[in-house]
Amino acid sequence: MNLKLRFAAVCLLLSTLVYGQTQSQDSLMLRNLYDLALLNGQSYQWLEHLSNQIGGRLSGSAEAEAAVKYTEMELKALGLDSVWLQPVMVPKWVRGAKETAYFETAGNKTELQICALGGSVATPASGTSAQVVEVQSLDALAALGKEAIAGKIVFYNRPMQAELINTFAAYGGCVDQRYAGAMEAGKYGAVGVIVRSMNLRLDDYPHTGSMSYGDLKDDQRIPAAAVSTLGAEALSKALQKDPNLKLSFTQSCQSFPDVQSYNVIGQITGSEFPDKYFVVGGHLDSWDTGDGSHDDGAGCVQSMEVLRLLQKANYKPKHSLRVVLFMNEENGLRGGRAYAEMAQKNKETHVFALESDAGGFSPRGFSFDSDAVNYQQVMSWKTLFEPYMVHAFTKGGSGADIGPLKTDGIVLAGLRPDSQRYFDYHHAPNDTFDAINKRELELGAAAMASLVYLFDKYGIK
Amino acid sequence: MNLKLRFAAVCLLLSTLVYGQTQSQDSLMLRNLYDLALLNGQSYQWLEHLSNQIGGRLSGSAEAEAAVKYTEMELKALGLDSVWLQPVMVPKWVRGAKETAYFETAGNKTELQICALGGSVATPASGTSAQVVEVQSLDALAALGKEAIAGKIVFYNRPMQAELINTFAAYGGCVDQRYAGAMEAGKYGAVGVIVRSMNLRLDDYPHTGSMSYGDLKDDQRIPAAAVSTLGAEALSKALQKDPNLKLSFTQSCQSFPDVQSYNVIGQITGSEFPDKYFVVGGHLDSWDTGDGSHDDGAGCVQSMEVLRLLQKANYKPKHSLRVVLFMNEENGLRGGRAYAEMAQKNKETHVFALESDAGGFSPRGFSFDSDAVNYQQVMSWKTLFEPYMVHAFTKGGSGADIGPLKTDGIVLAGLRPDSQRYFDYHHAPNDTFDAINKRELELGAAAMASLVYLFDKYGIK
Repeated sequence: MNLKLRFAAVCLLLSTLVYGQTQSQDSLMLRNLYDLALLNGQSYQWLEHLSNQIGGRLSGSAEAEAAVKYTEMELKALGLDSVWLQPVMVPKWVRGAKETAYFETAGNKTELQICALGGSVATPASGTSAQVVEVQSLDALAALGKEAIAGKIVFYNRPMQAELINTFAAYGGCVDQRYAGAMEAGKYGAVGVIVRSMNLRLDDYPHTGSMSYGDLKDDQRIPAAAVSTLGAEALSKALQKDPNLKLSFTQSCQSFPDVQSYNVIGQITGSEFPDKYFVVGGHLDSWDTGDGSHDDGAGCVQSMEVLRLLQKANYKPKHSLRVVLFMNEENGLRGGRAYAEMAQKNKETHVFALESDAGGFSPRGFSFDSDAVNYQQVMSWKTLFEPYMVHAFTKGGSGADIGPLKTDGIVLAGLRPDSQRYFDYHHAPNDTFDAINKRELELGAAAMASLVYLFDKYGIK
Repeated sequence: MNLKLRFAAVCLLLSTLVYGQTQSQDSLMLRNLYDLALLNGQSYQWLEHLSNQIGGRLSGSAEAEAAVKYTEMELKALGLDSVWLQPVMVPKWVRGAKETAYFETAGNKTELQICALGGSVATPASGTSAQVVEVQSLDALAALGKEAIAGKIVFYNRPMQAELINTFAAYGGCVDQRYAGAMEAGKYGAVGVIVRSMNLRLDDYPHTGSMSYGDLKDDQRIPAAAVSTLGAEALSKALQKDPNLKLSFTQSCQSFPDVQSYNVIGQITGSEFPDKYFVVGGHLDSWDTGDGSHDDGAGCVQSMEVLRLLQKANYKPKHSLRVVLFMNEENGLRGGRAYAEMAQKNKETHVFALESDAGGFSPRGFSFDSDAVNYQQVMSWKTLFEPYMVHAFTKGGSGADIGPLKTDGIVLAGLRPDSQRYFDYHHAPNDTFDAINKRELELGAAAMASLVYLFDKYGIK
């Protein structure tokens, strides 16, 4: 019947039975952490402030600095053993006025939604206008060569592969167009680059992201922008009809000298092994067109929540547990590098680091960059996570910011939420607070706290 | 770095390796079904039509009949062996004008977002106005008794339990307020009932759903409405300050005699066991305040897609495979009952039935109402589903519409998508097409087709 009562009643019965059973200390602790997250969680309110009151937090911006002050204040309010800022010099790139783009064919003008890629140079004030060469890859570009490319705008239009279940794999399969597209096209004398947004949906949001000119000389550095997937489809279709159509775009982005910024760090000092460090973190900076709710406001507030949940559960970590909100993941990774350098300089032995930087969606599991022994240990905890629908414990990458901490003796881990919707929002104007589901965010924080608890209790092997 | 390239590259490498391995016939078939669903799926376009071109499909409405015609036409276009309509008489309840509600305290008037529960009677044209008794349960109501209740509006305000990971369990834990609230309050002489919406979020959407008056006489049948969760919070807070405040609401809903409608059925006749039947289905009717995209347009188009995917994969089912789009799940289950009666009358042996009626979200697994042998068989297929992130194979309910088919010899199954967001939309005005993610919908259809393929190939034990 419409109540779906039959299924719901069975679920309720099962839940009650599970509650009623005598449970191990670990499963009771996980249940407690989840209860605390779901019934009195703090992560959603913190993210509301970061997203709605502060907004996009591009490195070097006033918003990034406001986010440093806000999260430092909130961590201090938790009564951790210490809270401090680690100075980091970060690049400062500014988008400038809203970009414009259009193409003209048979007297018709079609506007496109674009945004400059992070780190790109501007067009001349009057814009860049040229014919377009559409390619599907950097190899295809090289095959065309200088004669076909010089003086043209190169349009990279290889879409993400929809058949890949893990959307990060689809992203990895075409992001070279965005990262290296201008560098390669510049070598052949192109005057600009337009890249199809890394988005599996057809919509009209352009997705920004970082790019590099490598060692190119200044006069080979050409402006690069992302176009929405709908725009890419329209442009490609128009090019089939009229290969000589002209595309024009303007952007006024600009790079400035590095500025001072900070990683925000809070610590609960370990009761047994104060000189061995656990890190849980996300990155505080974001791109500027949205408010960075999924990338990576979610990971920051979940990481803060891990420490709060363990406190509320009256769990005293054996190892020193740090939350680190890294600055400048998006366009430089300066925060992640600076943190690892500091750790090395201070001879702080880091044994575990967990990053959340894949969106605030329903957690499906964790990926581990670790030795076999510790991976085996994780696998022995699988049943503890099953009641929470966290199933996938895989080998693989962890997180960009904690990558520089890698040594033989450390377990690096990444929270792996459901990836289906991530690239709908990634680096796009719609990565905003309304795209966050409170429960999904909280479940991620609880899963992270559970993993930290287990590794802290049983130790790194 | 911001590219998340390290993780993405590892994912891509792993995907490539998996592709490259020699795979079993079953894993190749699953891969093919997923490719077909994700690269050239039809479900999203069908749902776009059902949701945006037709809209909410309340039993007995013109929209429900339009949906019957549309899906019959689309199934015929697939070139199935047969497509037909099974006549079903269904209740006809009409909401009428938009409901209104407000409470007054200390001269201030606060409006509330409400909607009539399905099957409720109307208020008098001038509305129902009375003092309010807030209770948390039917038991609490009974404890108060007639003296406290007579002449009052009963306000049921027990929220869903946020700590339950499966939100259907949380729903099952408080839906008695909605289903039986008016029946019980009517016995004590209440003049109306307001029920907190079955929604885990705080927002301003009222969530409708079915209710029953049981055997109450006409003069004890009182109007019942759902109030948004924000409205419930506001009303509860106001009652704490002023227990004598007056609540007023109007609704003009009406019940009519039963009308003719239909289940829509399509069949591929089995190549080996044409007299043994598999069913895959969802319900075509929906509530009327949204467009029923998640509940249960998604389940309908996924079920249609199962047959299309198997066709495109050139798989000829051994058993006769039917898609059944059931009418009237929401307020009567007439379609599910009529289908089971027809099967019995025609001595059609049904051995497998799968329903999708839990939203078009990322599939997490299936629940099974079956014997131990067949459940064991399913567990042997678990590794086939792991590359698709389908992990949870549980015992439990299946689906309301296929429930009447239950015999000792049948395997009943339900698709279990991620449940975190379902009750954000369930029976609410925001259950609309924009809440559907194309990939999540398609992944559900592919998972269903995979399960049908395996059970058809290996048989019911």
